[in-house]
Amino acid sequence: MTKHRLQGNFFEDFRLGQVIRHATPRTVSDGDSATYMSLTGSRFASHSADTVAQQLGYPRRPLDDMLVFNIAFGKTVPEISVNAVANLGYAELRFVSPVFGGDTLSCESVVIGLRENSNRRSGVVYVRSTCYNKDGSVVLSWVRWVMVHKRKPEAKIAENHVPELRSATPVEDLVVRPRIRTSEALDEWCEATGSRSLWEDYAPGNRIDHPLGMTVEEADHMSATRLYQNNSRPHFDALQMRSSPVGRRLVYGGHVISVCRALAYDGLENVLSILSINAGTHAAPTVAGDTLYAYSEVLERQKVPGRSDVGVLRMRLVGLKNTPPSEVSALTMQEGPSSSSYHPAVVLDLDYSVAIPRKPTNGARHE
Amino acid sequence: MTKHRLQGNFFEDFRLGQVIRHATPRTVSDGDSATYMSLTGSRFASHSADTVAQQLGYPRRPLDDMLVFNIAFGKTVPEISVNAVANLGYAELRFVSPVFGGDTLSCESVVIGLRENSNRRSGVVYVRSTCYNKDGSVVLSWVRWVMVHKRKPEAKIAENHVPELRSATPVEDLVVRPRIRTSEALDEWCEATGSRSLWEDYAPGNRIDHPLGMTVEEADHMSATRLYQNNSRPHFDALQMRSSPVGRRLVYGGHVISVCRALAYDGLENVLSILSINAGTHAAPTVAGDTLYAYSEVLERQKVPGRSDVGVLRMRLVGLKNTPPSEVSALTMQEGPSSSSYHPAVVLDLDYSVAIPRKPTNGARHE
Amino acid sequence: MTKHRLQGNFFEDFRLGQVIRHATPRTVSDGDSATYMSLTGSRFASHSADTVAQQLGYPRRPLDDMLVFNIAFGKTVPEISVNAVANLGYAELRFVSPVFGGDTLSCESVVIGLRENSNRRSGVVYVRSTCYNKDGSVVLSWVRWVMVHKRKPEAKIAENHVPELRSATPVEDLVVRPRIRTSEALDEWCEATGSRSLWEDYAPGNRIDHPLGMTVEEADHMSATRLYQNNSRPHFDALQMRSSPVGRRLVYGGHVISVCRALAYDGLENVLSILSINAGTHAAPTVAGDTLYAYSEVLERQKVPGRSDVGVLRMRLVGLKNTPPSEVSALTMQEGPSSSSYHPAVVLDLDYSVAIPRKPTNGARHE
Repeated sequence: MTKHRLQGNFFEDFRLGQVIRHATPRTVSDGDSATYMSLTGSRFASHSADTVAQQLGYPRRPLDDMLVFNIAFGKTVPEISVNAVANLGYAELRFVSPVFGGDTLSCESVVIGLRENSNRRSGVVYVRSTCYNKDGSVVLSWVRWVMVHKRKPEAKIAENHVPELRSATPVEDLVVRPRIRTSEALDEWCEATGSRSLWEDYAPGNRIDHPLGMTVEEADHMSATRLYQNNSRPHFDALQMRSSPVGRRLVYGGHVISVCRALAYDGLENVLSILSINAGTHAAPTVAGDTLYAYSEVLERQKVPGRSDVGVLRMRLVGLKNTPPSEVSALTMQEGPSSSSYHPAVVLDLDYSVAIPRKPTNGARHE
Repeated sequence: MTKHRLQGNFFEDFRLGQVIRHATPRTVSDGDSATYMSLTGSRFASHSADTVAQQLGYPRRPLDDMLVFNIAFGKTVPEISVNAVANLGYAELRFVSPVFGGDTLSCESVVIGLRENSNRRSGVVYVRSTCYNKDGSVVLSWVRWVMVHKRKPEAKIAENHVPELRSATPVEDLVVRPRIRTSEALDEWCEATGSRSLWEDYAPGNRIDHPLGMTVEEADHMSATRLYQNNSRPHFDALQMRSSPVGRRLVYGGHVISVCRALAYDGLENVLSILSINAGTHAAPTVAGDTLYAYSEVLERQKVPGRSDVGVLRMRLVGLKNTPPSEVSALTMQEGPSSSSYHPAVVLDLDYSVAIPRKPTNGARHE
Repeated sequence: MTKHRLQGNFFEDFRLGQVIRHATPRTVSDGDSATYMSLTGSRFASHSADTVAQQLGYPRRPLDDMLVFNIAFGKTVPEISVNAVANLGYAELRFVSPVFGGDTLSCESVVIGLRENSNRRSGVVYVRSTCYNKDGSVVLSWVRWVMVHKRKPEAKIAENHVPELRSATPVEDLVVRPRIRTSEALDEWCEATGSRSLWEDYAPGNRIDHPLGMTVEEADHMSATRLYQNNSRPHFDALQMRSSPVGRRLVYGGHVISVCRALAYDGLENVLSILSINAGTHAAPTVAGDTLYAYSEVLERQKVPGRSDVGVLRMRLVGLKNTPPSEVSALTMQEGPSSSSYHPAVVLDLDYSVAIPRKPTNGARHE
């Protein structure tokens, strides 16, 4: 019988510079937004209401950034990570243009790095993936690296290259779409979010313990992962996962990010959109029954060149399982998101940048 | 660090006459309708099909009344009830105009009553909330009262006022939108619902035991509550709820209403829309694993001034857990929805009014 | 009190030739597609993206065939099978025209067969059901037969007639809508699916073991069944099902088909649409916690009269619970889908026909 694509790629199938066009273009709709909301509880105002989004210069509400990311990511799974041992990290993720109901997304990846492990049974593949809209414009792009099994340990690997990645996208390379055109527009925005905490109110070193917790159910994380057409087996097949180290289905890491971001609404109500994900680590697995909590740290506060209405906050979002943030002191965290030694409650360490309105500069304070 | 709205209001934060504009305007869509249907199983014909709704004079199918109510209610949670000990009751809820996909809803509340409890550790707050569409028109309004903790028991409360509330909205104040223009339109409507039971067929005192039961799952009630962007912790955080009296997550009362109303389809197929909720009591908590049942009683049959096509039924919807209606005699119920002494299976006692077609008056009986 | 349709039909209520117009017309939307995707993980390209569907000659992506079938089927439950002991089989299902967001579906059934069981306590009802779009055009039609209780065993049954049903819809009666107009269109299609396995690559006797498994949760199957407005009690009422033979809620058979079809994507990526279901048997019940797997067998490869771009594959889809396909040899299967003696892991045996692109005939091989 002829080949029917059933097995995905193994480490020795990848080549440096290889271009992979991923399958299953996907039209998105308000239905995806409703489903996403029902699975995550997202409340960020620019994705919630057309009227609010129009005040920011959008034609209508764009889809939630993390919904777009997760759909895009899902496309890359069959070729990149269906045989992955682990998703090791993200870097250089940049949201370039917003996505609206009716848009159609497709993805492409380029292999930018390969490093065989010393045990010769697996290797690390680095890919830069780009998600396009139907008109060919770039929606977002990102780098991730995954550990992938070799089909045969004895297979020879000619290429070894670890790409250099930026620790964070510089502010001048961020695409900041939303605009606050007038002082009245700022007032309306703040009314829509119920908060007057603006860019100036967040200082590097500040920490926000988000008050809510969310217990994850099997049906929830599987529905989210299916919505993204992500077919990675560990999220769905309880029977096979019995013989895995954790012994059960694992929650897709992108769902953990989405839930933690939704929890991070309280205290970050005025975030307009995510601009970049600079680094991300899934520090420990999450399974159904775990209750997720989150806290945020302000890493940097940056001005946007040529813009006085909106500033950038580089944030650290820490996701915790079964432990409220008040019980996790910053001291128990190691340095930086690349560390491998975390407090055992930490499931997610995400370094990302967001746009948030600034206070008017003419002295007319709003508070 | 500056204030980031994390804690909601406590009893001493409310003032009589205070106006609260709630955050997070929300555009609704067919996606919300699909998600609502998948979470409740609603089958009422006017919300199910554009063609049917157009026969009734709508441009297309309006969103399910309880979907609209729950979204509107969710907006009020952060300021009104996130610190509530209990939702004590609803009154004077009135649906004023229908909501369609693409509409954007926002909410405002006015504090109309305050009563400190004798233990001085909490008080009851009465608010009248109004939900507006994007053009400023009123969608629905309602009164609810909640018991809210005080931040400090010793805080002095200057104001004490219990508002007078109507036991039911008089029929002349109900807004009856759907129209049955001709005898043929009535026939088409009845074909769409599969029932010929009309206004004349329901007499005060009649009781309808709805045949179906619905077991509630954690994922179901959490998804519904998240769809409404209702961030009330007891519905989501299993870990913290372990130390609560019930020991687990509670099902949001609005989801209980939605499920019971969906169960009440069989026997009330020809209901066109909900016009008012006159009173409502959540008599006991519902948790995942409970199986909900419902029965209805006809309280009143009312004519609509100037209308012969449609009449009003004032109904009582009783939600039961783990006990089919056949096992709960009306005698075990105390008088009226304000009673606090219910059969232990009762979770919901809702007094509401609906529009339902009348039989043609020209003697041409349809059955 | 007057009749309120609460009980459905019993065997003696049916008459040969009886026409039943089913209730609850249903407008479908992109919201249904999103919900369906989140509940099944469907990835077939023609239902996923407008751009892809437009290449095939559709105005935009049609709803997934099984979503349409399940919505249509749900309409027939209240009158046909709400009192059914068992759904015995399907035959002669034919998809006639595609369904798009905004369409409104309604259903009608004709009783085409009646056969009382020898115990006189039940009988088998055969109905041909047709689903119409709002303009009156036929969307799909099918025959099913169900065993229905008699209200009274002593009731006399005048009519006994078992209809003759075709074992499969002949290829000339299939409506093949999608078109691959050019060699470039074929290339684009294959890029959208990530597979070059075309009609010529599947030979009768081939078997494809689909690699993924999907564990079913109560919330998942109930949400799917509610989305279809299917009110059949065994899927929802855990309390009453305790006293049933299986002791718990049963997964609706249509959800099993949907999940197995979604699992069957890997290896059948290029399927354009389902044309017919020739026969279907639910060989054993599925309950929450079961993990579903699937394998496919190629039964026939057929040319479409007058078409060289697309061919037909008649396929057998076998759904398994808690047993990967590799553990079920074809030898343990009895002959044909009408057999009642299956491997105990088999939950579904579906004989259906699909459209799939053919290789270009001008010698310009694409692989």
